[in-house]
Amino acid sequence: MTSSQKYRIEQDFLGEKQVPVEAYYGVQTMRAVENFPITGYRIDEELIRAIAIVKKAAAHANMAVGQLDRKIGEPIVKAADEIISGKLHDQFIVDPIQGGAGTSINMNANEVIANRALELIGEEKGNYAKISPNSHVNMAQSTNDAFPTAIHIAVLSTMENLLHALEQLQAEFKAKAVEFDEVIKMGRTHLQDAVPIRLGQEFSAYARVLDRDIGRIRTSRYHLYEVNMGATAVGTGLNADPLYIKKVVENLGEISSYSLKSAEHLVDATQNTDCYVEVSAALKICMINMSKMANDIRLMSSGPRAGLGEILLPPRQPGSSIMPGKVNPVMAEVVNQVAFQVIGNDQTISLASEAGQFELNVMEPVLVFNLLQSIKMMTNVLTVFRKYCLSGIEANKEVMEGYVNNSIGIITAINPHVGYETAAAIAKEALHTGKSVRELCLEKNVLTKEQLDIILHPSEMTDPGIAGKQLLK
Amino acid sequence: MTSSQKYRIEQDFLGEKQVPVEAYYGVQTMRAVENFPITGYRIDEELIRAIAIVKKAAAHANMAVGQLDRKIGEPIVKAADEIISGKLHDQFIVDPIQGGAGTSINMNANEVIANRALELIGEEKGNYAKISPNSHVNMAQSTNDAFPTAIHIAVLSTMENLLHALEQLQAEFKAKAVEFDEVIKMGRTHLQDAVPIRLGQEFSAYARVLDRDIGRIRTSRYHLYEVNMGATAVGTGLNADPLYIKKVVENLGEISSYSLKSAEHLVDATQNTDCYVEVSAALKICMINMSKMANDIRLMSSGPRAGLGEILLPPRQPGSSIMPGKVNPVMAEVVNQVAFQVIGNDQTISLASEAGQFELNVMEPVLVFNLLQSIKMMTNVLTVFRKYCLSGIEANKEVMEGYVNNSIGIITAINPHVGYETAAAIAKEALHTGKSVRELCLEKNVLTKEQLDIILHPSEMTDPGIAGKQLLK
Amino acid sequence: MTSSQKYRIEQDFLGEKQVPVEAYYGVQTMRAVENFPITGYRIDEELIRAIAIVKKAAAHANMAVGQLDRKIGEPIVKAADEIISGKLHDQFIVDPIQGGAGTSINMNANEVIANRALELIGEEKGNYAKISPNSHVNMAQSTNDAFPTAIHIAVLSTMENLLHALEQLQAEFKAKAVEFDEVIKMGRTHLQDAVPIRLGQEFSAYARVLDRDIGRIRTSRYHLYEVNMGATAVGTGLNADPLYIKKVVENLGEISSYSLKSAEHLVDATQNTDCYVEVSAALKICMINMSKMANDIRLMSSGPRAGLGEILLPPRQPGSSIMPGKVNPVMAEVVNQVAFQVIGNDQTISLASEAGQFELNVMEPVLVFNLLQSIKMMTNVLTVFRKYCLSGIEANKEVMEGYVNNSIGIITAINPHVGYETAAAIAKEALHTGKSVRELCLEKNVLTKEQLDIILHPSEMTDPGIAGKQLLK
Amino acid sequence: MTSSQKYRIEQDFLGEKQVPVEAYYGVQTMRAVENFPITGYRIDEELIRAIAIVKKAAAHANMAVGQLDRKIGEPIVKAADEIISGKLHDQFIVDPIQGGAGTSINMNANEVIANRALELIGEEKGNYAKISPNSHVNMAQSTNDAFPTAIHIAVLSTMENLLHALEQLQAEFKAKAVEFDEVIKMGRTHLQDAVPIRLGQEFSAYARVLDRDIGRIRTSRYHLYEVNMGATAVGTGLNADPLYIKKVVENLGEISSYSLKSAEHLVDATQNTDCYVEVSAALKICMINMSKMANDIRLMSSGPRAGLGEILLPPRQPGSSIMPGKVNPVMAEVVNQVAFQVIGNDQTISLASEAGQFELNVMEPVLVFNLLQSIKMMTNVLTVFRKYCLSGIEANKEVMEGYVNNSIGIITAINPHVGYETAAAIAKEALHTGKSVRELCLEKNVLTKEQLDIILHPSEMTDPGIAGKQLLK
Repeated sequence: MTSSQKYRIEQDFLGEKQVPVEAYYGVQTMRAVENFPITGYRIDEELIRAIAIVKKAAAHANMAVGQLDRKIGEPIVKAADEIISGKLHDQFIVDPIQGGAGTSINMNANEVIANRALELIGEEKGNYAKISPNSHVNMAQSTNDAFPTAIHIAVLSTMENLLHALEQLQAEFKAKAVEFDEVIKMGRTHLQDAVPIRLGQEFSAYARVLDRDIGRIRTSRYHLYEVNMGATAVGTGLNADPLYIKKVVENLGEISSYSLKSAEHLVDATQNTDCYVEVSAALKICMINMSKMANDIRLMSSGPRAGLGEILLPPRQPGSSIMPGKVNPVMAEVVNQVAFQVIGNDQTISLASEAGQFELNVMEPVLVFNLLQSIKMMTNVLTVFRKYCLSGIEANKEVMEGYVNNSIGIITAINPHVGYETAAAIAKEALHTGKSVRELCLEKNVLTKEQLDIILHPSEMTDPGIAGKQLLK
Repeated sequence: MTSSQKYRIEQDFLGEKQVPVEAYYGVQTMRAVENFPITGYRIDEELIRAIAIVKKAAAHANMAVGQLDRKIGEPIVKAADEIISGKLHDQFIVDPIQGGAGTSINMNANEVIANRALELIGEEKGNYAKISPNSHVNMAQSTNDAFPTAIHIAVLSTMENLLHALEQLQAEFKAKAVEFDEVIKMGRTHLQDAVPIRLGQEFSAYARVLDRDIGRIRTSRYHLYEVNMGATAVGTGLNADPLYIKKVVENLGEISSYSLKSAEHLVDATQNTDCYVEVSAALKICMINMSKMANDIRLMSSGPRAGLGEILLPPRQPGSSIMPGKVNPVMAEVVNQVAFQVIGNDQTISLASEAGQFELNVMEPVLVFNLLQSIKMMTNVLTVFRKYCLSGIEANKEVMEGYVNNSIGIITAINPHVGYETAAAIAKEALHTGKSVRELCLEKNVLTKEQLDIILHPSEMTDPGIAGKQLLK
Repeated sequence: MTSSQKYRIEQDFLGEKQVPVEAYYGVQTMRAVENFPITGYRIDEELIRAIAIVKKAAAHANMAVGQLDRKIGEPIVKAADEIISGKLHDQFIVDPIQGGAGTSINMNANEVIANRALELIGEEKGNYAKISPNSHVNMAQSTNDAFPTAIHIAVLSTMENLLHALEQLQAEFKAKAVEFDEVIKMGRTHLQDAVPIRLGQEFSAYARVLDRDIGRIRTSRYHLYEVNMGATAVGTGLNADPLYIKKVVENLGEISSYSLKSAEHLVDATQNTDCYVEVSAALKICMINMSKMANDIRLMSSGPRAGLGEILLPPRQPGSSIMPGKVNPVMAEVVNQVAFQVIGNDQTISLASEAGQFELNVMEPVLVFNLLQSIKMMTNVLTVFRKYCLSGIEANKEVMEGYVNNSIGIITAINPHVGYETAAAIAKEALHTGKSVRELCLEKNVLTKEQLDIILHPSEMTDPGIAGKQLLK
Repeated sequence: MTSSQKYRIEQDFLGEKQVPVEAYYGVQTMRAVENFPITGYRIDEELIRAIAIVKKAAAHANMAVGQLDRKIGEPIVKAADEIISGKLHDQFIVDPIQGGAGTSINMNANEVIANRALELIGEEKGNYAKISPNSHVNMAQSTNDAFPTAIHIAVLSTMENLLHALEQLQAEFKAKAVEFDEVIKMGRTHLQDAVPIRLGQEFSAYARVLDRDIGRIRTSRYHLYEVNMGATAVGTGLNADPLYIKKVVENLGEISSYSLKSAEHLVDATQNTDCYVEVSAALKICMINMSKMANDIRLMSSGPRAGLGEILLPPRQPGSSIMPGKVNPVMAEVVNQVAFQVIGNDQTISLASEAGQFELNVMEPVLVFNLLQSIKMMTNVLTVFRKYCLSGIEANKEVMEGYVNNSIGIITAINPHVGYETAAAIAKEALHTGKSVRELCLEKNVLTKEQLDIILHPSEMTDPGIAGKQLLK
């Protein structure tokens, strides 16, 4: 077998190109691979699936309006279905970062589907006279509507997993809030001792902020349900039959199971990418919050001897080769790192979005690459953080109670009962002698043990209510 | 008069300090001024007003629950009212960027109000035994609830002006869309000639994206309506009477006229700042869109001879001292610049928000400084851009029509009528000879003048409908 | 006096405009004020001075090459000198953020100088036939060379103060490193106890990283010494006499006292702004390091009872109105905040720089606004941080020594002397019993008190040398 | 064969774990894979090589100082050599983004080397009593010195390719500058016609800015040559023999061929990561400049009919499936996209660097992931941009000359010869009649054809010199 036998010759209007004979991709994919050896990464699987969904929906619509022969359309649908089911993904070889606003991704899909469809009807790959990547698979489409539509679907799909991960995470925080509800500790502001709080209140606050994050991420999907399918090149729908436009969006909704609708203003929907920046912003805010929580958890678990030592994290891996027994808060650290990545990605997405010009934003490839990366990294990291860290956190109650008992900050609670002057004097003495506020109150007979038990009771100090106020009467 | 007469002596637990005798601020303000000579800017006026609103609401609530003597509370309210009405703002001299989570801003307000209240009852400034900045003006408050509550109100207030400016801008874009509805031009993707579009469609798309921006900015206020007043130091409400908490939020709503409510989870509301990042993200997205529009407008108005020359901007100022008659698109350029500022500010806000620890985010001052700056700059720039640029834009119809008639891209519209092969041949000949597509169609008798008038009619090419399709039958 | 008497009428090629009769600025400044009410801030004083330096240098050069009559040139020089000496700055009323690549700032300067020069020769303000803002003050200049040249000078000038502040800060860190050289503490990685280190080593590391920062900031000035004066509109020097170009740069060097030279490639120097981004990057890196140090210092000073409590910061202001005696690390917190601002500003500067097109970057105003702000804020914050925080830091030796003695991490130092197995057993027992490693070593007779004194001596554990190794023989 | 046969059991102090029997990695790699399924990407090959270099250098140094038996050390060196030569890279399976400051990457390397070394001496994998990942491969090292040292080497190595790509790119720009030296065109400021310039001057300016970029990137390597090998856990060098420290750095220099030296302050070098941010900043600035150039090139090549049409880019791939013959500037667009990625990565790197605490920065994995990605993407994109776009750019001379001849901006050059008044009148007439300045000058007999030929000669207008000035005499 000579090497010339391993290739078939394909051509486009720029000329001929050798294509590996067994490849489902074709000449334009080959050009893109040559032009864009940028990241070495692969196109995201959800995006591949979403493009195939678009192609299937379009083929059905084109058949329905009588533009596409069923003998051509049916094998296209079949080929698209295979991709949707996870096959042929190795044939998507263009780089995720590429010039051309996604034309190369779109053509990679068009070529793979055309060649697989040809194979299904017993034709040779590359025989585009029978089934053409452009005329048939891409019929009535432009990259400028097909690609954004696929992005919408891919982002919606990956966001489902993320939302699920967030809900599980929130549930775990809530469970921990219940578990730690009775655990009193010193609240800290400016990293300085403030007044007591319950560990459960802190974890409940973490759950609560996730409530807003989940809400924001859900809401950020709103504009993704509007797709610009049928806009063709610049949003005017030139060469697309209005009935086709209606049909294709209906089909997309059915195949994808998302309630998609046609964007009301196709010119706008074709040139603007703010719906992606909106999603990215919601992701960024979530990771800002998560990074703050990870920092808190790393601080609380600092020690074991020269740190706060308030909580214990499940050990996940040896932390040092040189210091035996050292275990580090690695699951929290990786949350911080993903936060930094998502914040940086948001910057890239913002810049890409700002760079739109006239009827199109040609920077969509780098934009969607970063957006899908953010979503997936978040889903992954939040899942392992929950499973391998959060769910196993244990409270070091004695340490935390010790801080409270030893603290001068609790004088704030005693203040209303003994008057500011007495309180201030006790505080001062506590600071200088190292004695506890409770001790001094008893020593000086300003309050009885019973009164102190009420006033300094965890729930009374952290959720001020009836009991303490009774004492004042 | 000796210099010692110009000062009064005040003290706090760190010691004594000279205060200018006529000053309404006091010792803690003096310390803050010494500690934080950072930006040289002043505290935002809306923020000053908002803090005064908080102080007034708190005084009323404290009087209502019987904690604050009306002889003290009433003058506090009066002093606060003066500040709300715009007086005494020159007494707010602390730097907007300051350590301490806003304690200095809060104390500046407490001191000004106390001293003005003292003056109102005929007492000397500094006589805090009568009316105290801490015990009376700040009663039942912590900086950690009073300051965030004031930020919420200040942001809500400044956002009103912004939303008004955005609505006016959008209305102007809509008016321009109507004005330019018949003006045909070449649509461009990748800065390359694509297919025709109407200038009105472009301006209508600009109006449309602003629709989403206005919606996003409106929505981003949602969590601002929840205030943490009554949370005191760490969100547990220690030392705050539950009835006071209820009253103070009611009062805040009445005074500010916003539908404020008490945050459901005060610990969460005290430590997290995601509601500000949410607003900033919405602002950023808006300015990303505005920057894209400004870029389009600068491109369209490029020329007069060596540019696109599609539109004319109203001349606002001489553009060059060396080139007579040169006028630059300065009002669009300043939109870009504010966009860059808002994007950078969003970064600062994100970093500040991520830096929260445990029960508080001490970075709030830099956060709110950037947030209010973004809102105000946007309000200003969008207003002048509308008035001085957008409303006076004129279409250079001849130039734009010339591009369309001269374009090869319109072959796309002829394609369905003459077949791909003929169309391609005409396109090729047009490219090489410089002749127009219309000319060649007539020359070759492939379409009549009447047919071409229909097919190449602006509305037919840019909003494909009935007429063109009739011809196909 | 009627209101019409309060104004003079000036005109440019866009028409007439009323100017307050006593104003030194003129018609183009008026237009700019109307067009750009963006930030409400004033132009930086150093920038005003730098523009005046440029105007003075140009006037001298134009007189030298015989283009400018000395009767016009001398008063221009005199007026410029007044501005350099700090006068008339209130006449610079254009907003720092403005469209037009600095034309408005430049014209504001041209007009103020022309009118002050007119006044000096006994002419009425506005009599531009005698001395013209454009023809005389701006002679042989374009905004495109005059403004960037002024920016270079202003940045160089403000950077001097910053470098001085950094050097003082570094000296203070070094002094503290000496002061704390004997203070042993637990080193921490991942916030987990690692092995001992001396507090002096930590402060010496802080001094050391500042060494690189100072070096980077110094180096980043390199390209600022190249100015594009004489480039005129696009860098080709059209209408500028080569002798003038030579002279004006010489003059700039003399007046500013910086070793300025003519940029080798004026087209490049006129359109690119990377030299500013280079400075901003150096500033950003410095503040990233400073933020890390501020975080360390806030962590070390956390407490007093429920934190690490390793160092004491000088109290600068009361930290809470609700918790008596609370003092917060406000001087460190404000360092963090300025860090966030400088990082955000760097983003704005990067975006502005990327937006250059063809022969010019019209976004220079927002760029220079952020750059000068970063430099000044840093200078301010580093100065007060040094004076009010760093220099007064005290070590809490007992606490730190207690952590070391109590730590299991010191087993690492004992390891080579007793073998891994014994060491591991001791570590395990220490963890479970709460006993110290030293205690257990004595108890089990594995090492004598004398040996432990050597092995666990601070300098031996933190700067491993001879003594410990002797024991091994 | 039962499934139990496919695994071997390994253990660390957290317990036992199944490891695939043929795997070279071990128990700690398995833990890391379970903990960190974050990105799905692989560790960069240059980083894998660099870690192997570190391990080889350490083994040699440990043998030299007599700590490591040559029977153990030699196979370790051999195994490391295999990895350096590109083998076993598939055994590095931990995710690039991971908690633990690189411990997992380090342990992955330690385990692979240990097991390959065991194999080389005929022992079973996992028999760590003979050759241990920790005790032998990692001897006298901590992740905290081994990993940063490897990063330094990996970054230096990848930067070589980048610098080579930049030099080739610059050479191509210079060649183009020569090729286009005679091509006159309109210079543009604010996208508005300014005064003439030569296309060669523009390309020469592009080459010139790259000069600074190359210089900056080279300079940014300076601190990378300092490595912290021997610092061990916190920079104090605990348990590392001073002679070993000396030897290991010497070995590193020899093996890597970089002039590495020991960092002067190991505590500083272990905790600070500013040297990476410094590199990233230089990369970012370069891509800001490249993005500006890519934008210029996209603008110049806009058209073919409704754009500037000044240059022609080599067609690289069909640009549209719907518009036949459309070709887009894809190679310039992908430069923009990589610029956005590198700017976003710089943000991530900055955040990661700021998050260092005390003796270590645990965020190094995400930092180095982004840094190496930036370097590699830049190398790739600049190479293909040069080869597939820049080198094939053709000037559309007629179009550009037409703009100049048709321009009113050239009146600036005529100004000194005819007086301002005449010039202004001609400019005005040109604007209104559409006639050219040259035409009008001849028509009005203000200058002869010969004079105009001199004054309006490309080199005279764009590089003002003798000829034009002669005419003035």
